[in-house]
Amino acid sequence: MADRERSAARIEHDIETLAGPGYTLSDEAIRRYAYTPVYRATLDYFTAALRELGFDVSEDPVGTLVARNRPPGEKVFGIGSHCDSNRNGGKYDGTMGVVTALEVCRLNADFGLDLPLQLVSFLEEEGSGFGQMLLGSRIMLQRVTEEELRDTFRAVDDGRPFWEHAADAGYEPERWRESIHLLDDLSGWIEMHIEQARVLQDTANRIGVVTAIAGYVHADIVVRGRSDHAGATPMDFRLDPGLVAAETILELERLARAAGKSTVGTVGEIAFEPSLINVVPSQATFSLDIRGVDEDAFRGVARDIASFAEQAAARRGMTAEFVQRQTLAPTPMDERIVSALESAATATGEPFMLMPSGAAHDTMCVAERVPSAMVFVPCKDGVSHSPLEDASPADAALAAEIILNAIRSLQ
Amino acid sequence: MADRERSAARIEHDIETLAGPGYTLSDEAIRRYAYTPVYRATLDYFTAALRELGFDVSEDPVGTLVARNRPPGEKVFGIGSHCDSNRNGGKYDGTMGVVTALEVCRLNADFGLDLPLQLVSFLEEEGSGFGQMLLGSRIMLQRVTEEELRDTFRAVDDGRPFWEHAADAGYEPERWRESIHLLDDLSGWIEMHIEQARVLQDTANRIGVVTAIAGYVHADIVVRGRSDHAGATPMDFRLDPGLVAAETILELERLARAAGKSTVGTVGEIAFEPSLINVVPSQATFSLDIRGVDEDAFRGVARDIASFAEQAAARRGMTAEFVQRQTLAPTPMDERIVSALESAATATGEPFMLMPSGAAHDTMCVAERVPSAMVFVPCKDGVSHSPLEDASPADAALAAEIILNAIRSLQ
Repeated sequence: MADRERSAARIEHDIETLAGPGYTLSDEAIRRYAYTPVYRATLDYFTAALRELGFDVSEDPVGTLVARNRPPGEKVFGIGSHCDSNRNGGKYDGTMGVVTALEVCRLNADFGLDLPLQLVSFLEEEGSGFGQMLLGSRIMLQRVTEEELRDTFRAVDDGRPFWEHAADAGYEPERWRESIHLLDDLSGWIEMHIEQARVLQDTANRIGVVTAIAGYVHADIVVRGRSDHAGATPMDFRLDPGLVAAETILELERLARAAGKSTVGTVGEIAFEPSLINVVPSQATFSLDIRGVDEDAFRGVARDIASFAEQAAARRGMTAEFVQRQTLAPTPMDERIVSALESAATATGEPFMLMPSGAAHDTMCVAERVPSAMVFVPCKDGVSHSPLEDASPADAALAAEIILNAIRSLQ
Repeated sequence: MADRERSAARIEHDIETLAGPGYTLSDEAIRRYAYTPVYRATLDYFTAALRELGFDVSEDPVGTLVARNRPPGEKVFGIGSHCDSNRNGGKYDGTMGVVTALEVCRLNADFGLDLPLQLVSFLEEEGSGFGQMLLGSRIMLQRVTEEELRDTFRAVDDGRPFWEHAADAGYEPERWRESIHLLDDLSGWIEMHIEQARVLQDTANRIGVVTAIAGYVHADIVVRGRSDHAGATPMDFRLDPGLVAAETILELERLARAAGKSTVGTVGEIAFEPSLINVVPSQATFSLDIRGVDEDAFRGVARDIASFAEQAAARRGMTAEFVQRQTLAPTPMDERIVSALESAATATGEPFMLMPSGAAHDTMCVAERVPSAMVFVPCKDGVSHSPLEDASPADAALAAEIILNAIRSLQ
């Protein structure tokens, strides 16, 4: 049993240091993107702390941090997250996961366990530097092309290619394919992250053991009607696409609830054209975000809402078109690691729950090659991607203890 | 019985001339605003045509055209509309009403009827020059302040006050209060206008005799919920204001239909915040345009939709606020004039209907002091405020004949 107060104090010290001058481009929010001096300083902070614990620390050809306490070729258990922020970020998203992984390494030393560990801090999970989410873990998985790295992916701030920025920062982007080797010796992987929603807080749980990361369908529905004078056109003479949009928004809620299995459906964007108070819209466009850990369930909702919208439009003499933006399958977590985390959590006596992750994480990429799992801690009111983000170092300390004990039980 | 083909040819000639070089600022659309050279040329065109018919033509202190065939103090029957355009205008909105009034004056001469007539072409009905709708008729009714004319009302194009533009054009804005006198001798008033909706076209009627101009409530409803991660927040943990918006949009349609009496309700504008595909909105705002000729009916809809939105929000743990932008009572048309128009229309054997006007017109201001009515002619597909606006000179010729005979029967 760890000294959780000491762990919490160490985690808090790391978090607060990395939220301070030298580690963020702004004092109004955390702004930390790959290849900036503040990102370099953050990697140096972790490097120093890990070397102190006897870890061998290196960076892969694009800048992903890899620290291990065993020589290459020996099996190690992976832990980590990312330490870049989004563009209006808080102290906890990503960074608390790397800090908690560091605390696992410290506890490993404190107790003289000498578990074989490899800490990874992925590059550009948030996509803030180059507009590409999960960029580091996608490079690792070879899910990008050299053309994209050399030319297509450009810095949000100066428009110069990823390739140039990586080379200027001292990396060797031409060796990017070697990033895959950071997975070579991993026997398993656990990432800790703040939940980014309010389920843990609202159910008074301190820990979430993730069973699967949701897949999703992102799409738009475009309903085409007819623009008419809002005063002069009687109700029976209208083809108002806003009414079809309204019916479809309500049906999406009904379908998502009926599908169960953690399926969710959201309309986050909507626009009427021409958008004038005194004109019946000619067109209504709205977005769909449909997710879940059960692929049949969430894909069924996407199929059903597309056909509902078409029928609802046809009933009113209009047309509706479902246009998919992108889609991704769900990522189930490894049952053995989930079970080890569940046992370790039970042993603490603290309240925890099994839950899906609705948000995407680097672990989705790692899990393609390595048995993986995730641990969530609560964040206040579910607020994330905001300077108002808040989470508890005590919960992170609890997570570190659980992760350590789970890895121990898996050896 | 008039020679309708000759009337239609004269009307078409006027319309096409005024759509040509020298009478519009653009050849892509009709653009004709008060105090521009093309507006001056348009007034000159009408002045010359009316003088030829023996009318005494003058302009009031701000530039409203007044032409009469009787000396001041003798009763005259008023006819006219406006000849300014909106900023992306067509040939017919307003202009066809003045042209048709001119044709009534011509027919009066053709048949040697010598009916006492006063033609009026109002200034800035569309508000394109100074952003103020019905500006000329509101000045006439003293529904503006001198401060507004001197300072607040400024040209959309150069930001200079209405007052300066009027003075530069040779008018005497300091005498603006005298505009009211153009109503002094009117025994009645009839305005012809294109319908700006598709009811006449779709019911195969050539003439609409307007029974009332709709009043309206313009308002917004703001629903406040809570922004959450669209993937990570289960359906039961959400306060999604978009769902309340959807319910309210559908209820508005139901209420407007149930209210009957030409009541209409429209949601033309909608916005979600923060408007991201993967975020449950924190706020949904949408506009309401509720109109009708029966004041109890349309005000009832406005009251009921406000309370529905509040209750729908409360049922889901949110709040909704109804914020009125502006409101106006309906304007009933004069029964005696409506009846005279109905008889004259019946006598032509052509299909016509009694109908409300959903759009606002200068006649709303005239009707406050003078028994008034309006006649509509169809416009293609209801399109107005667009270079695609289309209407038939033959229908306008029919309207001219009906208006002439109605005035004759009222003497």
